[in-house]
Amino acid sequence: MIGKERKTWVTASDVAARAGVSRSAVSRAFSSTASIAPDTRERVMAAARALGYQVNLIARDMITQRSSMIGVVTAGFENPLRARLLSDLMAVLGQRAFTPLVTNADDPQQLRQALERLLSYRVAGLVMTSASPPLSVARQYLAHRIPVVMINREANLAGADVVVSDNAAGAAEAAQRLVHAGARRLAFVGPHTASFSARSRADAFAHALQRGNMSGATLASVIDTASDTHACGLDAAQQLFAAGHRPDGVFCSSDLLALGVIDAARAAFGLRVPDDVRVIGFDDIPAAAYHAYRLTTLRQDTQGLAHAAVDLLADRISAFDGASRTRVVPVTHVVRHSCA
Amino acid sequence: MIGKERKTWVTASDVAARAGVSRSAVSRAFSSTASIAPDTRERVMAAARALGYQVNLIARDMITQRSSMIGVVTAGFENPLRARLLSDLMAVLGQRAFTPLVTNADDPQQLRQALERLLSYRVAGLVMTSASPPLSVARQYLAHRIPVVMINREANLAGADVVVSDNAAGAAEAAQRLVHAGARRLAFVGPHTASFSARSRADAFAHALQRGNMSGATLASVIDTASDTHACGLDAAQQLFAAGHRPDGVFCSSDLLALGVIDAARAAFGLRVPDDVRVIGFDDIPAAAYHAYRLTTLRQDTQGLAHAAVDLLADRISAFDGASRTRVVPVTHVVRHSCA
Repeated sequence: MIGKERKTWVTASDVAARAGVSRSAVSRAFSSTASIAPDTRERVMAAARALGYQVNLIARDMITQRSSMIGVVTAGFENPLRARLLSDLMAVLGQRAFTPLVTNADDPQQLRQALERLLSYRVAGLVMTSASPPLSVARQYLAHRIPVVMINREANLAGADVVVSDNAAGAAEAAQRLVHAGARRLAFVGPHTASFSARSRADAFAHALQRGNMSGATLASVIDTASDTHACGLDAAQQLFAAGHRPDGVFCSSDLLALGVIDAARAAFGLRVPDDVRVIGFDDIPAAAYHAYRLTTLRQDTQGLAHAAVDLLADRISAFDGASRTRVVPVTHVVRHSCA
Repeated sequence: MIGKERKTWVTASDVAARAGVSRSAVSRAFSSTASIAPDTRERVMAAARALGYQVNLIARDMITQRSSMIGVVTAGFENPLRARLLSDLMAVLGQRAFTPLVTNADDPQQLRQALERLLSYRVAGLVMTSASPPLSVARQYLAHRIPVVMINREANLAGADVVVSDNAAGAAEAAQRLVHAGARRLAFVGPHTASFSARSRADAFAHALQRGNMSGATLASVIDTASDTHACGLDAAQQLFAAGHRPDGVFCSSDLLALGVIDAARAAFGLRVPDDVRVIGFDDIPAAAYHAYRLTTLRQDTQGLAHAAVDLLADRISAFDGASRTRVVPVTHVVRHSCA
């Protein structure tokens, strides 16, 4: 049976034979930097097309000792904000002729094995969009002089660059909007112990309320959730609204949390949004726009985050050394019904 | 400066020198099939750990002419069902020591380039979870004797295997549940021209209503949407409920469509769900469980789809030839408030 199997891969030598040129002429024809006569290149390309030849990138990466692959560490695919960020990251990487190798940090059994495999594939860089892998992972990559960029994550690591949304400006804007809409007893909901982004937003929200000019509004409660999910929002609302002095304005560190808070405020406590309680989220996921919620929120510019991350990574791939840099990407206030 | 740069990669020769063994002993130590004395293997492993040695998978793939990479074509990351399917697929591929190379078919500019690149990386197989890339792409891979598995997609391609959710059973169940809940004027909403899954569900829904024992219920309208989104659901509801004879039961080919239908039925027509109109979706995305919707739906078993797809792919990687196979994965009825 083996004898009957047709050859799987057309080689550069097959192309050379058909085009009547040398093997090295085929290599030069497929290199963007090598010099070759235009008609020779044309003959090679015609032969390659006729034979269905594909450049062997594995071989090329091995010979040039440079991979076009970039490791991308995400924390699951089901969080809508992370899904949008991943989509934009992959588009930007593709535009720069990088091949993304995606790894899911939400699956701890797989993560270690997957990160070792990325290293084995000699990735040219690593983008971490998740808080889950420990910083020791980033250190391991940096020790191999593989550039690391972190998105929405704190990092004091020499050589690692950071891209973050403007959490401080977004949280200050949320405080002003809630107060302007009439709220005086404010609450913050978010995983501020577990997450750098939530902590930044909590700090800036508290700071904005203390700074004054806030019509006597106070930060009445801070709920530290386990994570960023709708279910955590439901739990937080139980704590917020079961007590005697209910808040009349809630800033949530993610839209999913805000949707959970709104669902529980209505279903378990009969509260009206925004009449009884105003709610502002963060991210601008698709469900924020649904009629059932019409959530006022702060939109993260995932395209901006992706472009900044890939810019920093590409810079550091061409020159590894140099001080760590941080890029802050603006957020946009999206006004809907929940805090009009 | 180049002279000051420390060497990036520890090589197998470095490990051999430190362990005091031959270069080929290092290779054998890292191969699961080669024979080597236990104490030699232990010496190699200790040296590898001390030096931080990583097996070069690119080189190994090239030498063995077998890649551990599997191309995965998805249609965006933002559809929650596709996100869950992708997550499960990546977990199953990881468990089998495959490395997924994910490509987004939603970005037509990138798709062609990305698929060529996958071919250049000599992927061992391709999983298509999207209707977007033309079948010519699958044919191109099959011509290189690279196995192709399609999920929730029709394919009459010799050598391509297919995994689908049980659309027929799900749609028949939806018809029975709607009628049992009191609906008599039924509607179907879904992209039945554009999508194989939607067409299968539309056909089986109509067939179930014709088969009788349905208390005189009829299929009053079929709305062919452009795609599977919430916005398409809003549009469909405008057509369904603006007319004189409104349906009292709607089966949507996706949950996102169903959420849009519910939003518009309430906001634009003041209808109550399920009192005035019963609604059933398909997929069981997270938002289906939110209090604002509590959508009755048919849950796709994305883990089951992922396992079946990777099983078929692994079989065909070890033996490419053989007739195409189709696996049908059961769906589960999830009863919530929208059609109780």
